Amino acid sequence: MCELLAMSANVPTDIVFSFTGLVERGGVTGPHVDGWGITFYEGKGCRTFKDAKPSSESEIASLIKAYPIKSCTVISHIRQANRGRVCLENTHPFTRVLWGRYWTYVHNGQLSGYKQALQCEQFVPVGNTDSELAFCWIMEQLQKKYPKRPANIKSAFRYVAKLADKLRQFGVFNMMLSDGNYIMSYCSNNLSWITRRAPFGKAQLIDADMVVDFDKETTPNDVVTVIATRPLTDNEQWQVMKPGQWCVFRQGELFAQSK
Amino acid sequence: MCELLAMSANVPTDIVFSFTGLVERGGVTGPHVDGWGITFYEGKGCRTFKDAKPSSESEIASLIKAYPIKSCTVISHIRQANRGRVCLENTHPFTRVLWGRYWTYVHNGQLSGYKQALQCEQFVPVGNTDSELAFCWIMEQLQKKYPKRPANIKSAFRYVAKLADKLRQFGVFNMMLSDGNYIMSYCSNNLSWITRRAPFGKAQLIDADMVVDFDKETTPNDVVTVIATRPLTDNEQWQVMKPGQWCVFRQGELFAQSK
Repeated sequence: MCELLAMSANVPTDIVFSFTGLVERGGVTGPHVDGWGITFYEGKGCRTFKDAKPSSESEIASLIKAYPIKSCTVISHIRQANRGRVCLENTHPFTRVLWGRYWTYVHNGQLSGYKQALQCEQFVPVGNTDSELAFCWIMEQLQKKYPKRPANIKSAFRYVAKLADKLRQFGVFNMMLSDGNYIMSYCSNNLSWITRRAPFGKAQLIDADMVVDFDKETTPNDVVTVIATRPLTDNEQWQVMKPGQWCVFRQGELFAQSK
Repeated sequence: MCELLAMSANVPTDIVFSFTGLVERGGVTGPHVDGWGITFYEGKGCRTFKDAKPSSESEIASLIKAYPIKSCTVISHIRQANRGRVCLENTHPFTRVLWGRYWTYVHNGQLSGYKQALQCEQFVPVGNTDSELAFCWIMEQLQKKYPKRPANIKSAFRYVAKLADKLRQFGVFNMMLSDGNYIMSYCSNNLSWITRRAPFGKAQLIDADMVVDFDKETTPNDVVTVIATRPLTDNEQWQVMKPGQWCVFRQGELFAQSK
């Protein structure tokens, strides 16, 4: 199993607090020692930092903790390998271009007996994980159904949810997917989220001895949603998603969800 | 104009010395203040660090200088914007997937009157630079001509050179292109390269007060080629490329070149 983390915000926000908790799970409080990665969007552009080393030992992870990159859309992953060896090309997040935007994806879980069903011609994996193949297959199906970006983007996310329902038949498929504007999260068994807005309070990390007083870090108009495999704080009320549920967030707010 | 830098080596080598010289051109000794980026390959995977801020002020550039990431294949770019505004999605290097590998590209120069000729359907730009469009067009033409990776990869690079000849009709087109294994450089007006091998000597950066004694940094079997817009050192003999010339390097050695 791996740890997923995403943030959707209405103003550029740093993810240092949540990432600090996540990084601890990469070798200190958790067994996720096979690499990590994080993607920050800035406008239509994005930057990905990744490392095949455990996040708790990574100098680049230390940079991310020390140097707050502000973004409205962030996706992150800490890996415990099950399918595919430990190397950079198998390290999440994965990114491909669709409809003139960078789409970024992370997956938690394990699929079996899927190769025959997930044939890809246009979106080809570089590594050999089930995760990247499933992502390429989703991108390929999306492009086949919508050669151009649909005016009603909700229909595209509903279609991704249907594809994820199929993927879930092959095993555990928790995933997050973003084009920089929207973040979709699909739950197979473990995903939780929380939206923070005024009045802000204090939050206590579960995995590190760290408290943040968001009231001092934010303005009254800020809306920030954090999505994670498991709740990262123990003094706040997280929404625990159910198997098959999905949500789409935009600028910190819930934009669409499963019925 | 922008500054390009690439390195091809037969053993994982750090690029700290050359990158230090390049970074100075981003706002100190040169006018290239509109962002920078660098891609390191590790196996089939790659990592790109980029920033829309001047490289001489960038905290991430400081990380690259301080933390030697070793790689056999590196491509880097410092930007002075001419086409396309200063933002992350317009910052080089650009990367796309072809034949199951990440292809990374940087361009120096400026094209005019090219849009009609460079129509892309499958490889679509995200930003709005002439550089990224030219890259997408090269990828698209390559995929059309070779739906699968050709057994003789030289023929693919010869075809890229033909495409670059066409692009050069629209203006200045110095570029470097890599799949992580090979690095191709195509010269429109400014590109130089040097291959360092035993016996190694000392090198003095032009743009910063820094000398490296490669004899202390290398083993006798190391072969390292550096390609740059202009020579980075003033006490070594660089090969200055001519307009229309191209080279392909692999593991530090010249693999193919124009006749």
